[in-house]
Amino acid sequence: MRICVIGCGAVGSLFAAHLAKAGEAEVWVYDVWKEHVVAIQKNGLRISGAADLTARFNATSDPTQLPHCEYGIVATKAIHTKTAIAQAAHAFDETSAVCSVQNGVGNEELIAERVKYVIRGTTFPAGHSIAPGHIGYDIQGDTWIGPFEPTGTPMARVEVLAGLLTRGGMNTIPLKDARGAQWTKLIFNASTNPVGALTLLHHGAATRFPPTGQLFNDLIAEGEAVARKLGIELHGDPRQLVQKGANAPGKHHASMLQDVLAKRQTEVDFMNGAISHWGDKIGVPTPLNKTLWALIKGLEHSWPDPD
Amino acid sequence: MRICVIGCGAVGSLFAAHLAKAGEAEVWVYDVWKEHVVAIQKNGLRISGAADLTARFNATSDPTQLPHCEYGIVATKAIHTKTAIAQAAHAFDETSAVCSVQNGVGNEELIAERVKYVIRGTTFPAGHSIAPGHIGYDIQGDTWIGPFEPTGTPMARVEVLAGLLTRGGMNTIPLKDARGAQWTKLIFNASTNPVGALTLLHHGAATRFPPTGQLFNDLIAEGEAVARKLGIELHGDPRQLVQKGANAPGKHHASMLQDVLAKRQTEVDFMNGAISHWGDKIGVPTPLNKTLWALIKGLEHSWPDPD
Repeated sequence: MRICVIGCGAVGSLFAAHLAKAGEAEVWVYDVWKEHVVAIQKNGLRISGAADLTARFNATSDPTQLPHCEYGIVATKAIHTKTAIAQAAHAFDETSAVCSVQNGVGNEELIAERVKYVIRGTTFPAGHSIAPGHIGYDIQGDTWIGPFEPTGTPMARVEVLAGLLTRGGMNTIPLKDARGAQWTKLIFNASTNPVGALTLLHHGAATRFPPTGQLFNDLIAEGEAVARKLGIELHGDPRQLVQKGANAPGKHHASMLQDVLAKRQTEVDFMNGAISHWGDKIGVPTPLNKTLWALIKGLEHSWPDPD
Repeated sequence: MRICVIGCGAVGSLFAAHLAKAGEAEVWVYDVWKEHVVAIQKNGLRISGAADLTARFNATSDPTQLPHCEYGIVATKAIHTKTAIAQAAHAFDETSAVCSVQNGVGNEELIAERVKYVIRGTTFPAGHSIAPGHIGYDIQGDTWIGPFEPTGTPMARVEVLAGLLTRGGMNTIPLKDARGAQWTKLIFNASTNPVGALTLLHHGAATRFPPTGQLFNDLIAEGEAVARKLGIELHGDPRQLVQKGANAPGKHHASMLQDVLAKRQTEVDFMNGAISHWGDKIGVPTPLNKTLWALIKGLEHSWPDPD
């Protein structure tokens, strides 16, 4: 069996390394970060932190080199989904299933424009790049996957992928309806990410500081109201995810804070933007999500020094 | 007649220099910024930008040197009002009147703890420090002053001060009720300052970029609702102040953005914090002002690298 990981940043690297280490499937990764790809080709990929391992697998920054794959895992930033799946789509046919493990909502819709069977996914492990070929593993966690409803992906395909990932060390729960897990993480991300990015506070400090801790809760309440009206049953309480992250050792920077520090476009359109979009559609007010969205868009707009 | 300017940053310097140039009063300034005081003592104070002048007057960083003054103008950051007026109060007696020209609301209450007659004031000129002894004059504008209601300051004292300032080149309008002017500027500041500070956008760019321009309007609407319920009639439309500032030449950084770039504590408690405080008191919801307040407090909290 062949599996291709599209996007080999921190999260994609964790998946690829664990899958390769388990040895059940031939692993390919595709990423535009050439130094990282070259380092992996030369020395394999090193993971350190919450787990320590080095894994060897096929890596390329030329998507035309990808062979046919039974499974795909898309782990790019949400802002790159559309381009990345267009470049890699030839590796998949009508028997393949491609799973998003990305942040936010809206990625599966973009993948389904190019691929027959799509799997909705949400993952909690987090990390950061240390150097080309070397990824820091900050936070361990589970992954939830289920059929993307419009593509009618057979549940058996979901279960095979979940088994493969779990045996590789990335514990994955197959669900008939993965929307609850996805929205739980979306609501968690849409509170912690922009607040971290705007205040420069690491996750634990932002949780413990009363003004920003309260803001987390107020943003979560807005997101929950939208999910409730959409008929999505959340998979636990996003506040518990906030607490769990705050209790983890170290000073974890939310991925959006990492983006902002590197002046990279953020995923806010797929987080607070998506919650506001759905809120507007079904008549649930989301003033705080709109505010955080506007502030992050403003911060991105400042980087080219506008007139 | 003797007049003392307490706080000789950009705004205090503009007032002191114009008053001294006019020559009607003996001008003293008190500031803890020693390099600035020494430069003024040596070479006078230079203003450049919207007006160009150099003025000589008495400057000290030792408040015990201040002589008795008939008038005082407090121009410190709002976060320093309490300390500064405690240090300088001996210069004033029961015949003196002390006017705030500071940002936000809540300063007059602090001055009135130490001084018999207090004058409520709001000023629009803006500038920035170029070097010790040299202030850039970015934006010209009017000043509105009126009795601080609880101290029953006679209107005649307000009118004398207004005349002095106007003849000195700082056009000042005496009003029986200066709350409307003060809240108009408060609402303007509480929208433009934290958004600029969080996005790093200069005022014109933040006004013209649709997401932040909309956020300005939403914050203004919240502040207007609080003022309306308090029975305060605004002195014009804060949106026009936003537009006027956006049309000014140059890339003006809101004072809170200047504070954030220098990692100085901001005035957000006297701006968004004050609007939320009044909103809570009279039952007007202020979710956006609370959000901006929490984000700025969080950003300040990040500077000492908290656990």
